Amino acid sequence: MLERKLPLRRRVADAINIDELERMARARVPAFAHEYLAGGAEDELTLAANRAAFAHRRFLPPMLRPAPARRLGATLFGRPLALPLAIAPTGFNGLQARDGDCALARAAASAGVPFTLSTVANASIEQIAAAAPEGRRWFQLYPLRDRAITLDLLARARRSGFEALVLTADAVHYGNREWDRRSYRGALRLRWGRLLDVARHPRWVRAVMGQGGLPGFANLAPYLPAGQGSVARTVAFIDGQMDRALDWAFLDWLRAHWDGPLLLKGVLRADDALQAFAHGADGVIVSNHGGRQLDGAIASLDALAAIRAAVGPAATLLLDGGIRRGTDIAKALALGADAVLTGRATLFGLAAGGEAGARRALDLLGAEFDRTLALLGCTAPEELGLHLVVAAPEIHR
Amino acid sequence: MLERKLPLRRRVADAINIDELERMARARVPAFAHEYLAGGAEDELTLAANRAAFAHRRFLPPMLRPAPARRLGATLFGRPLALPLAIAPTGFNGLQARDGDCALARAAASAGVPFTLSTVANASIEQIAAAAPEGRRWFQLYPLRDRAITLDLLARARRSGFEALVLTADAVHYGNREWDRRSYRGALRLRWGRLLDVARHPRWVRAVMGQGGLPGFANLAPYLPAGQGSVARTVAFIDGQMDRALDWAFLDWLRAHWDGPLLLKGVLRADDALQAFAHGADGVIVSNHGGRQLDGAIASLDALAAIRAAVGPAATLLLDGGIRRGTDIAKALALGADAVLTGRATLFGLAAGGEAGARRALDLLGAEFDRTLALLGCTAPEELGLHLVVAAPEIHR
Amino acid sequence: MLERKLPLRRRVADAINIDELERMARARVPAFAHEYLAGGAEDELTLAANRAAFAHRRFLPPMLRPAPARRLGATLFGRPLALPLAIAPTGFNGLQARDGDCALARAAASAGVPFTLSTVANASIEQIAAAAPEGRRWFQLYPLRDRAITLDLLARARRSGFEALVLTADAVHYGNREWDRRSYRGALRLRWGRLLDVARHPRWVRAVMGQGGLPGFANLAPYLPAGQGSVARTVAFIDGQMDRALDWAFLDWLRAHWDGPLLLKGVLRADDALQAFAHGADGVIVSNHGGRQLDGAIASLDALAAIRAAVGPAATLLLDGGIRRGTDIAKALALGADAVLTGRATLFGLAAGGEAGARRALDLLGAEFDRTLALLGCTAPEELGLHLVVAAPEIHR
Amino acid sequence: MLERKLPLRRRVADAINIDELERMARARVPAFAHEYLAGGAEDELTLAANRAAFAHRRFLPPMLRPAPARRLGATLFGRPLALPLAIAPTGFNGLQARDGDCALARAAASAGVPFTLSTVANASIEQIAAAAPEGRRWFQLYPLRDRAITLDLLARARRSGFEALVLTADAVHYGNREWDRRSYRGALRLRWGRLLDVARHPRWVRAVMGQGGLPGFANLAPYLPAGQGSVARTVAFIDGQMDRALDWAFLDWLRAHWDGPLLLKGVLRADDALQAFAHGADGVIVSNHGGRQLDGAIASLDALAAIRAAVGPAATLLLDGGIRRGTDIAKALALGADAVLTGRATLFGLAAGGEAGARRALDLLGAEFDRTLALLGCTAPEELGLHLVVAAPEIHR
Ligand SMILES: Cc1cc2nc3c(=O)[nH]c(=O)nc-3n(C[C@H](O)[C@H](O)[C@H](O)COP(=O)(O)O)c2cc1C
Ligand SMILES: Cc1cc2nc3c(=O)[nH]c(=O)nc-3n(C[C@H](O)[C@H](O)[C@H](O)COP(=O)(O)O)c2cc1C
Ligand SMILES: Cc1cc2nc3c(=O)[nH]c(=O)nc-3n(C[C@H](O)[C@H](O)[C@H](O)COP(=O)(O)O)c2cc1C
Ligand SMILES: Cc1cc2nc3c(=O)[nH]c(=O)nc-3n(C[C@H](O)[C@H](O)[C@H](O)COP(=O)(O)O)c2cc1C
Repeated sequence: MLERKLPLRRRVADAINIDELERMARARVPAFAHEYLAGGAEDELTLAANRAAFAHRRFLPPMLRPAPARRLGATLFGRPLALPLAIAPTGFNGLQARDGDCALARAAASAGVPFTLSTVANASIEQIAAAAPEGRRWFQLYPLRDRAITLDLLARARRSGFEALVLTADAVHYGNREWDRRSYRGALRLRWGRLLDVARHPRWVRAVMGQGGLPGFANLAPYLPAGQGSVARTVAFIDGQMDRALDWAFLDWLRAHWDGPLLLKGVLRADDALQAFAHGADGVIVSNHGGRQLDGAIASLDALAAIRAAVGPAATLLLDGGIRRGTDIAKALALGADAVLTGRATLFGLAAGGEAGARRALDLLGAEFDRTLALLGCTAPEELGLHLVVAAPEIHR
Repeated sequence: MLERKLPLRRRVADAINIDELERMARARVPAFAHEYLAGGAEDELTLAANRAAFAHRRFLPPMLRPAPARRLGATLFGRPLALPLAIAPTGFNGLQARDGDCALARAAASAGVPFTLSTVANASIEQIAAAAPEGRRWFQLYPLRDRAITLDLLARARRSGFEALVLTADAVHYGNREWDRRSYRGALRLRWGRLLDVARHPRWVRAVMGQGGLPGFANLAPYLPAGQGSVARTVAFIDGQMDRALDWAFLDWLRAHWDGPLLLKGVLRADDALQAFAHGADGVIVSNHGGRQLDGAIASLDALAAIRAAVGPAATLLLDGGIRRGTDIAKALALGADAVLTGRATLFGLAAGGEAGARRALDLLGAEFDRTLALLGCTAPEELGLHLVVAAPEIHR
Repeated sequence: MLERKLPLRRRVADAINIDELERMARARVPAFAHEYLAGGAEDELTLAANRAAFAHRRFLPPMLRPAPARRLGATLFGRPLALPLAIAPTGFNGLQARDGDCALARAAASAGVPFTLSTVANASIEQIAAAAPEGRRWFQLYPLRDRAITLDLLARARRSGFEALVLTADAVHYGNREWDRRSYRGALRLRWGRLLDVARHPRWVRAVMGQGGLPGFANLAPYLPAGQGSVARTVAFIDGQMDRALDWAFLDWLRAHWDGPLLLKGVLRADDALQAFAHGADGVIVSNHGGRQLDGAIASLDALAAIRAAVGPAATLLLDGGIRRGTDIAKALALGADAVLTGRATLFGLAAGGEAGARRALDLLGAEFDRTLALLGCTAPEELGLHLVVAAPEIHR
Repeated sequence: MLERKLPLRRRVADAINIDELERMARARVPAFAHEYLAGGAEDELTLAANRAAFAHRRFLPPMLRPAPARRLGATLFGRPLALPLAIAPTGFNGLQARDGDCALARAAASAGVPFTLSTVANASIEQIAAAAPEGRRWFQLYPLRDRAITLDLLARARRSGFEALVLTADAVHYGNREWDRRSYRGALRLRWGRLLDVARHPRWVRAVMGQGGLPGFANLAPYLPAGQGSVARTVAFIDGQMDRALDWAFLDWLRAHWDGPLLLKGVLRADDALQAFAHGADGVIVSNHGGRQLDGAIASLDALAAIRAAVGPAATLLLDGGIRRGTDIAKALALGADAVLTGRATLFGLAAGGEAGARRALDLLGAEFDRTLALLGCTAPEELGLHLVVAAPEIHR
């Protein structure tokens, strides 16, 4: 409403919300890396819809329901969460900050929330276990054709104390991320304009590229043919390995080989959520991959209520896509999520200021969620429910 | 529709609507003080929704119903109102104009409408009684932990002839008003940029700060430990005293200790409105604190009709949030309010030109409301009803 | 969609649509006069809604229904119309072009459509009869307190061969037209900025003011006290004479004193339309005075279908408000109007180029309406109906 | 969402989507020719609605439905399509590139999709047959008054191996394309400003005008009186020949004289679609002529589902209007189309880079459609259905 000229903060500790962290990130990181982080597929219809879905929900806060102190935490798979939130799996975090994965994992651990390591992370399963031994760690699996590699990844994850396995179902085919084609001439070779822009960010170059070029895909390095470990080769390897015939039988197979919590990520339909549980999943992540896969896919929040109605109150449902505020967490929980995952919100923090920045993002979200609960007269997340929200178009009836 | 370059008026008497008063206010007051006045919580979704809710309602004016003269006034708690309007409680009015509270109280009295004094006003209960002895005065209570202080406030209000007590229920936890963090480095210490901007407003400095810095919280001064009366200390004191365990029992307690009209402010749900009357309230103020508390809360106008339907035609319902035009007052009354309160509309007047500015705001709203009644063929406010409005989305069916 | 730099035409014959005539008008006429013409009340919600209502309707054109030639005309009150259109009554047309009323009347006559003379026109009933003897002429009546004056106006209208009487019901109280207060210091005395702007339009000054200042209100001159005929005095006279107690009995009285067609203008409710016919009206004009009276009133097109449903197929219903295209005429007829009236569309033409400009506006609308009928497979206006339109929000179900 | 400065590509092979081809086209072709291509009728409401209708649909993608490889092709009239797509008939393609029609026909043939030749093409039926002998070729017929000419056109089409006949029903009357009147002074004589702009595009002049002025209407040349073959004369001839009395009997007549597949183009109503099949059509093209005819007509995608519901699952339904992405093709098929036609998408390619550009457009659409199928877990177009899409306004219920 009120137009304001907002100053750009220098220290992440001064950022007062996720949007400010995003603006800081944009200033610190070269354009190609920021586009990779912030962009969505094609016309970014779904990227925008993810945010609009939150804006279209309105709270009906009850009054005089005392909530002098709130428990923000929840229990997930029998273990505590300091916030009903986990860090979503995101690949190539090393592009935003040196040791990006470890920084995120440490931030998550110190904030008491799980960190999910992507298959295509720059740090390995073992490095993350060493970096954040006390934290809850989840491993996100892209389904590779080679079952032996998959079994080895599971064994490593188990050995390194990873608690849960997240199978990402919505990205066996790549989304149409046009920034790639705009940024690169060939396999990871930047166009000239982009290179010039990189040169304008010496601090980023030192931090991120300093150790010898772009960071590699540490999880997959062991499986690459000897001397083929370049980033470009690995990308080609992953591409060739991605199991495009992924089906429900694979979930059964995973279930047979992983005895910890198993989550299916990328579900937008009620029938699929029911299938997931029927095939042994312990939880479902309602997600459209942050608008990076099928452009035009329904906003994850818009898909949530129908899924909760189908699976019943007891099933574990997480949601990601568009979480930027504590009120967003509350809306997601009110509409049926047990917890949310953050992709970009924490990545903006990481890009803006490494581990401290990621931690700042979590602290901001936590403080906002706490205040939201208080203002809704709720003393704990599980008190949130459908009676507290209404969709904007229904209002004017 | 038609684009226009609007000149900035110099005299409040020349302002032709509330928007012009707002533009004058913005020019006269330093940015930090204007943001405090005009801003809303977080992304200002609710601030915007409050206005949009009025824009989405359309009138169905009847013709040939003579209304050659209109009675604008109404009866509230057995006493007359010149307009179905009261001035809403707003804290720190001294920031907009010297003796802001007294100026507003005098403007209200001379216009024949009640003035509500905030707990965190800069003028005391007694000063207001002296400044506007003939006016209807209401006292807005923030629930303090210390019941003795509360009882003393009630006693002072009663002694000073305050008619009604307004319990604000929606602000026992603070909303996330980011302008504060943007404006201040620490407790009420402005950032450098903001100080520079203050220096560019010497007239404001002379008027507002001239008497020795920012004005204090006069109502609470007596209860502060000796020598602890600085503004920053008082803010900390209020923070510590705010009763975050506020519940319906507190309303019962208040009811037992206050025999005048008792209003509950901040209600957005029909069940809460019913509760309020069940616990002895004489009226309910449908409000979301002008979008300054829970961002994403439903627009107050959008909440109104359901509440009126629940409480029946006889219960006293007031509404605030977004009133900027006489047509807004008419829409609120048509949808079920007995009267409205103005926060910013009259504050813009105050900031633009002190008491005269506030009075100008009331006169403009009164004249616009009068014309609206005339154009709707109504001779008195109580003729407004649901048959006169329709929601925009329903139109295109 | 496609952005274009549109050149400003010099000759009205080159204008290819009403928008271009509007742009020409804006360039030729001083700002104060253009605002008077183009502006709406207060925040112009209704002005905008009038246009949006047309944009929200979509055609469902039938195919292979031959309409090689179309009859555009219709019969109204037993006499032919070349187009289902009349020129709406508008006051002070002399501000847009010298002898504006006569120019409009001649344009209407030559185009075969009725012209409505406003009570507050600059040309008299008699002058119009002389200027356009062969045209259909309607007289729009503002209800004056003095019944003798009213009877004399009716007698003059009858004597001068005016066919129909239009009683305007929606303007017995003035709308809040803020441009007046922005343009004028006192009664018709322009502010300095506005005077400067007038000086920048010497051609307009010569044409419009050349004959001795602003044109007067010729219809009312006979009734003014001697020597009181200044424009400012007349405005005050009208203000004093406006019958603010106008009710249905006045319509009965008019009915008794006027035996030609009698129309009630300004109706937006179905119950009022029914009343109008019950009190002897021969037709109803669904109108909100072009968004110049009650801001927030429903768009006239949005009110139409419900009114048609209430009054049945035989009753005469006209509509005005927002007609800028031939497709708008078709939408109005499809939703239930027998014909439309144009206020600004023809006035833009008048301001852009006098009689020729007004005629150009009518020709453009006629040609567009003809093409629209053809594209809808209709050979005559009466084939338009509800089966040919759908509301945009219904589409996405 | 994320603002980006997009560089203008030089080679069509580098264009990554249709929008980039459009921007290239705009840079290469003089404004008058680009407006002819990109513009719509009047206020371009329908042009915009065609695109908005796609944006308002959201996918509900199923997971773990393997689609490792997709068949993109379909069978239409017993013959294969490489993509469920054909190139729509568009007149005056020679304005965009030298030998525009042949270039499009070759691009279509090499991509394995039908090319539709317009009656008012610049290349003749015979030239197209020679240019793309192996391609599927359809001939679009404008209904000419002279049945002998029509029969000759049919005979030529048959002789030249054209497979299908497309009768365009929605353009027997011209739409109001205002760019014409803005660009031309008289019959095809450009205004000065436009000529200047042409002079700024020497490459286009050489390519398009180089062979002696604007290209003529090759299909119709044989029927023109001797020495009357100028472009302007042909335009007048077509105008005079257009059969404005076109009715269903003409479809019967065509059916009797054409034994190949017969399509009716321009249908937006379910009753018309039923009629078309009753009169012997083999297929219906749901279309509003790309928003170039009746402005305000319903978006073709918005009309589709009701038409499919009426005609049943077996009838052949194509759709055009607004196809710019592979996701658009998928949405159209999900809502009931068997295939789509592209007008501007392939024309932008043509204008950007001749045959290679048109082919690039087809390749981009094909690749996007393939990816969309994959992401929707579909192995072939016929798996798309209503269960995969939801309308945006329904989401927030
Ligand atoms: C830069 C980036 C990389 C991502 N990489 C992966 C990944 O490797 N595996 C995965 O399952 N999801 C990945 N995602 C999707 C996220 O897990 C998550 O679904 C999404 O970011 C949520 O939306 P948000 O960013 O609006 O919070 C990625 C997202 C981003 C932004
Ligand atoms: C600057 C400002 C200070 C406020 N202070 C208080 C307060 O002390 N107590 C309270 O109950 N409400 C307070 N409010 C909320 C108002 O009472 C009222 O609910 C709100 O302003 C209505 O919305 P409006 O400003 O759009 O009219 C304040 C509002 C503003 C704008
Ligand atoms: C400049 C102007 C003057 C008007 N004066 C009168 C008037 O004297 N009497 C009346 O009944 N309506 C008056 N109207 C309203 C018109 O009759 C008509 O209802 C309105 O202009 C229709 O909307 P449109 O301008 O969008 O076509 C006036 C409108 C305009 C724009
Ligand atoms: C430049 C141009 C010329 C056209 N000429 C014809 C034509 O000669 N015959 C016809 O049936 N349709 C014609 N059309 C309409 C197209 O066949 C098709 O319906 C439309 O372009 C589809 O919309 P799209 O451009 O958004 O894909 C033309 C369209 C354009 C853009």
